[in-house]
Amino acid sequence: MAPPPNVKSEEIVEESMAYQLDKRPISTIVFIIGVDSVGTIPASLVTYASIQALKPDLIINAGTAGGFKAKGACIGDVFLASDVAFHDRRNPIPVFDLYGVGLRQAFSTPNLSKELNLKVGKLSTGDSLDMCPQDNALIIANDATTKDMEGAAVAYVADLLKVPAIFIKAVTDVVDGDKPTADEFLQNLAAVTAALAETVPQVVDFINGKCLSEL
Amino acid sequence: MAPPPNVKSEEIVEESMAYQLDKRPISTIVFIIGVDSVGTIPASLVTYASIQALKPDLIINAGTAGGFKAKGACIGDVFLASDVAFHDRRNPIPVFDLYGVGLRQAFSTPNLSKELNLKVGKLSTGDSLDMCPQDNALIIANDATTKDMEGAAVAYVADLLKVPAIFIKAVTDVVDGDKPTADEFLQNLAAVTAALAETVPQVVDFINGKCLSEL
Repeated sequence: MAPPPNVKSEEIVEESMAYQLDKRPISTIVFIIGVDSVGTIPASLVTYASIQALKPDLIINAGTAGGFKAKGACIGDVFLASDVAFHDRRNPIPVFDLYGVGLRQAFSTPNLSKELNLKVGKLSTGDSLDMCPQDNALIIANDATTKDMEGAAVAYVADLLKVPAIFIKAVTDVVDGDKPTADEFLQNLAAVTAALAETVPQVVDFINGKCLSEL
Repeated sequence: MAPPPNVKSEEIVEESMAYQLDKRPISTIVFIIGVDSVGTIPASLVTYASIQALKPDLIINAGTAGGFKAKGACIGDVFLASDVAFHDRRNPIPVFDLYGVGLRQAFSTPNLSKELNLKVGKLSTGDSLDMCPQDNALIIANDATTKDMEGAAVAYVADLLKVPAIFIKAVTDVVDGDKPTADEFLQNLAAVTAALAETVPQVVDFINGKCLSEL
């Protein structure tokens, strides 16, 4: 059962830069999901394992996302998610339909978004880089401004283990634009992750030393 | 971040009937994935947590699946998977395409399939009960006889942690038939899981006391 060549599936934990701040009352774990182990399964596993190991007060899921220009997203924007949900877990059986969508609210951080002037919008998660018509319909139903491949999975596990979570997503590509997603994603990845790498420490600095209710 | 009403997302572990046989050399864990926490994320989490807790020699992922009559599957058939892969993790970027498909071989059990007269075929996994055209194309590319919502996720984690895994899937619905999947699934679920509940103990009895190489 060897993994595909060059795919470092064993490196989930190593690729996820997890650290705890040295000041209380809030310890913070920052996940930067490695580009190799993308998607909801590694995201859920690393969230679970890290919560078990580090017992954080707050999870920050930081990464890249596609953005919808019709909802006000531009390349390089950094969004805080207000809500997260899935768009590729379709099940018509009652209750299972809601389970599949898995809508969860991010931990509310009005002072953080105001202080750092971050845009706020809904995030929709799926395991494909592209967007088929069925994904598109559910993303619209989720009223999403950004589309990623991990957020709702992190939210699911954080909710299961009762740890608050926030989601910081930098826009690498415009989903409802005219460029192919993979090309635009690869073209903007370096610049946008650099912008993200500026924002995330500002978020951590803002959080550090505060109580959850002050965020 | 409350789960949707009536969805018992906290009950993953409780719903997964996990037990260890009392005889060596092979300890066996049987997962029967609960109907509430369906899909790849809970499957990956319960596989990870159970391997950590129980350190099994072998994982048996037993559950229901859709079957393709064009590939010889009928309602009530119980299949052993030869290979597992995903059909809803589309990514056109080279290497990520292979990572998304996540093809893995099940642990080979020629004596088991012969002894219990189980059909053998490839299994394809996705998080939706239905099948959109993009799923269909990848299921065909995966050459799958059965389609489930957990197998490839169990295989991913088992592979990551180097535990052999086998997959026993009982067919509740014919995907390439003329009945709506959800109706056929619900109509046949009780009878087919009863058939599965007869087969799985036979599998456990066959495995019990044998070495992996004898399976």
